[in-house]
Amino acid sequence: MMTAERYEICISGSGGQGIITAAIILAEAAGVYDGKHVCQTQSYGPEARGGASKAEVVISNNVIDYPKAMKPDILLALNQASCNTYFSDLKPQGLLVVDATLVDRIPTSRVVSIPFTDMARKQVGKALAANIVALGAVGYLSQVVSLKSLEAALMAKVPEGTQNMNLKALRAGIKAAEKVDLNTLPRSISREEEEL
Amino acid sequence: MMTAERYEICISGSGGQGIITAAIILAEAAGVYDGKHVCQTQSYGPEARGGASKAEVVISNNVIDYPKAMKPDILLALNQASCNTYFSDLKPQGLLVVDATLVDRIPTSRVVSIPFTDMARKQVGKALAANIVALGAVGYLSQVVSLKSLEAALMAKVPEGTQNMNLKALRAGIKAAEKVDLNTLPRSISREEEEL
Repeated sequence: MMTAERYEICISGSGGQGIITAAIILAEAAGVYDGKHVCQTQSYGPEARGGASKAEVVISNNVIDYPKAMKPDILLALNQASCNTYFSDLKPQGLLVVDATLVDRIPTSRVVSIPFTDMARKQVGKALAANIVALGAVGYLSQVVSLKSLEAALMAKVPEGTQNMNLKALRAGIKAAEKVDLNTLPRSISREEEEL
Repeated sequence: MMTAERYEICISGSGGQGIITAAIILAEAAGVYDGKHVCQTQSYGPEARGGASKAEVVISNNVIDYPKAMKPDILLALNQASCNTYFSDLKPQGLLVVDATLVDRIPTSRVVSIPFTDMARKQVGKALAANIVALGAVGYLSQVVSLKSLEAALMAKVPEGTQNMNLKALRAGIKAAEKVDLNTLPRSISREEEEL
């Protein structure tokens, strides 16, 4: 599944969107359940820029030398500010994934746009579960974590009484991502697009 | 308050003891509320060793070059396995803080030993709040985060309906740590002790 030795995922959004929770579940799926080397980090302070914060997950088959994401393979942007702020970090062959409900100015056509918040509201009954819907999609698209481990990590992490709701959210995200045909996307982010 | 440019805190224990939650609250207190540079990390996979896992917080007045803790200034050990595993990482002038309820074999006399779990059970009514009692103590002892910010970060992070309980836990930890006279401790961890 993982050809590169090091795979970097950046999960970004505003403070209240549950990006750290999503990153920790992803990290535990790959690290605790799949047995890979994983570092999960967040930075605070002057580095955080208006409405845009991020949580990073680095997954590797080998020991991880530097724990932060340098050139993400996937950038998940749950709001417009984080899409604007972190897009330029993305690897040229990287994939942008956005919440279509909240992000409408998209800087590349190499993008998977799924309405995570609308789906969370309509299919799960809770808009705040958008982070878990997005986690399902990113987990599926990354191909670096097994979906079984993702479910197990989710079940271990969320509070009692919210497990069914969260599992529904995760599976909705996976299902939406399964419908995406990555072969129809441009193979890399073009320089012209980057300059937009 | 912070004389060194870089201050490293390692919070360790077993998987279910809420060490990541405590680390994130500490990081957000220093980073979001005190405006310092903060990196918060956890690593998974083969690095995790039997019953001992850790979450790290690096706090600095300047940009943080390497986000992981190399030589912690404070090691909080919430169980015996994590005390055994991570003690040797501690800086020679660093401080070991242990949960006296669960750690009885202590490798140095440069230690603050407080019964976090007993206190959480008796004073808060919930043994699982031991991580927040310990957070109060570590926050106070570190002197790198304001207690006002620690309370604000805690209130923003914990679920609705648990705020009073958590505030009680935090304050119990702060109060216990206030009684500690660090001047009565040896000024550094001796080599003989390290070899125990």
